[in-house]
Amino acid sequence: MDNIRRVVPYVPGEQPAGKVIKLNTNENPYPPAPAVQEILNTDDAELLRKYPDPSIGPLVKALAKEYDLKPEQIFVGVGSDDVIGMSFLTCFAGEKPIAFPDITYSFYDVWAELFRIPYKMIPLKDDYTIDIDDYDGQWGGIIIANPNAPTSIELGIDRVEELVKRHPECVVIVDEAYVDFGGTSAMPLVAKYPNLLITQTFSKSRSLAGLRIGFAVGNPELIKAINDVKYSYNSYTLNRPSIVAGVASLSDRPYFEKICGKVIATREAAKKEMAALGFSFPDSKTNFLFVTHEKVPAEFIQKELKKRNIYVRYWKKPRIDNRLRITIGTDEEMAALYAALKEIISQCK
Amino acid sequence: MDNIRRVVPYVPGEQPAGKVIKLNTNENPYPPAPAVQEILNTDDAELLRKYPDPSIGPLVKALAKEYDLKPEQIFVGVGSDDVIGMSFLTCFAGEKPIAFPDITYSFYDVWAELFRIPYKMIPLKDDYTIDIDDYDGQWGGIIIANPNAPTSIELGIDRVEELVKRHPECVVIVDEAYVDFGGTSAMPLVAKYPNLLITQTFSKSRSLAGLRIGFAVGNPELIKAINDVKYSYNSYTLNRPSIVAGVASLSDRPYFEKICGKVIATREAAKKEMAALGFSFPDSKTNFLFVTHEKVPAEFIQKELKKRNIYVRYWKKPRIDNRLRITIGTDEEMAALYAALKEIISQCK
Repeated sequence: MDNIRRVVPYVPGEQPAGKVIKLNTNENPYPPAPAVQEILNTDDAELLRKYPDPSIGPLVKALAKEYDLKPEQIFVGVGSDDVIGMSFLTCFAGEKPIAFPDITYSFYDVWAELFRIPYKMIPLKDDYTIDIDDYDGQWGGIIIANPNAPTSIELGIDRVEELVKRHPECVVIVDEAYVDFGGTSAMPLVAKYPNLLITQTFSKSRSLAGLRIGFAVGNPELIKAINDVKYSYNSYTLNRPSIVAGVASLSDRPYFEKICGKVIATREAAKKEMAALGFSFPDSKTNFLFVTHEKVPAEFIQKELKKRNIYVRYWKKPRIDNRLRITIGTDEEMAALYAALKEIISQCK
Repeated sequence: MDNIRRVVPYVPGEQPAGKVIKLNTNENPYPPAPAVQEILNTDDAELLRKYPDPSIGPLVKALAKEYDLKPEQIFVGVGSDDVIGMSFLTCFAGEKPIAFPDITYSFYDVWAELFRIPYKMIPLKDDYTIDIDDYDGQWGGIIIANPNAPTSIELGIDRVEELVKRHPECVVIVDEAYVDFGGTSAMPLVAKYPNLLITQTFSKSRSLAGLRIGFAVGNPELIKAINDVKYSYNSYTLNRPSIVAGVASLSDRPYFEKICGKVIATREAAKKEMAALGFSFPDSKTNFLFVTHEKVPAEFIQKELKKRNIYVRYWKKPRIDNRLRITIGTDEEMAALYAALKEIISQCK
């Protein structure tokens, strides 16, 4: 059988069981809004015998209200991954290569390979920043994460707009998975640029990684094309619990702002603590820090932390193989991290 | 922007709101197992802040136990649609066309179009049966639904085995979405034929359409390839509620057998009632009947039923445009259907 497709998959961060400090997959350390618990624990399971609304109507409407958009500007999927995957399949269907940074969410090249989309990786500058001049030319599509991962750096909104403006020949996707932790969303620009598509997720800032809810915002024509591709793959993607819990999550803005604020406060404190320990890192606008130590190799630190049941993310990849991506946890988890790091570093002196 | 993919999507059956008799999307009229209600209504929403198990481990293990398989023989996805879609992308990656019946689940050609897989539709016989001799030749893949939809007819297990045996050149997918309503599964054959892939769903016989759970059973090498493609698209597909509720559903075999038995009993009674009303239909092994009336056109009946808030499925397509697919509901729903049909038919005399 020579018809079987063999691919090299994306490898997600470990999901260890048991009592560990898990700072390796950028999850939110706080629970979802209380309304989520309430709706899931009272919803009638009898309703599960029917298919969910294929248009995901209630959640689309709630998102439209929350972000002051029209429902036809919104596409919802099974996490950002499904949303961006469908967007690749829909929007990057030309012959020309698509462009994205060499250091970014490592799923972009995996999707391009899967769907046989030609692509070119544009190197970040030495300080890990994006220079939009490097994207000049004609592309089949462009995707950037903003703030970028794993670098944590935000590209200024004026630069994002300029990038979109310079590339009317293609769709520009801005993956805003981390924008709620102090970044500036490009959402106000979608009315102006029909080639701009923004994606966001409920996994990080809304503490709902376990439900898998992501969405895209863009021009109605673009959203319709993505929906048509979705309907050509799976009529019913989001299940009933995700739809009702997603709506519940959006119903409590004060809680959302409170937990984002807590993560941001802990991150700002972490910047001081980590600098004092001899780490340097870009100025993060996300729920993680992308650190390197002045003396101790990153891979060694990762292994030592794991021995102490603290998980952080490390990639043995060019340009970032002496870096760790550390998710911002609770203040207690971070205190345990600092203590462990102190111990590990002192061993190496 | 000429890079946008334009597709003609599959159109699912209507999901009307409000109080209607819904016999149009083959849902189960009975609620899911009580254990499902229990686990969903007690599960701690705090756990949703973390990503679900990317390997869907607990559900894979429960399925392995239930069907006496090894975990590495099982792939789980977001409904049969996701499972078959991923299987198309993985197993039908050759240059040769794939083959499937002209009258079958109307998503097969939609997936083939989406993934640009060449395909040939093999006409069913005049009585809507599959003749496996019509599939002789070399293919890039074969897929049949068994029992077939919307015809409701089962192909004998010996014929299924012969089809798989005759086509070692490709993967043969047997879509068993309806097998639990009295059909015979080809699952015992997977150990013998590495090119056989069987798909099933929790949507019909387990009353969990609202959760979206489907699975495939096959050779470990094949399952690994599909999992690799899945991990290249979306690391975390099944959300936490689906994983825990899926396990709960499998824990109650007596309930599962009871509701399947009730649907089968109602179907057998429906065969008599419908015949007495002047309908003919193939001998169904599913949770629906595929009927035609001796005098009254199908499209007219569908419209008249809809006026009475009874939904059934009709396709304006060659060879089946005088047929209705009617899902088996509760005895009460079926009684209301018969009464409405009596009225509609009497109008036409």
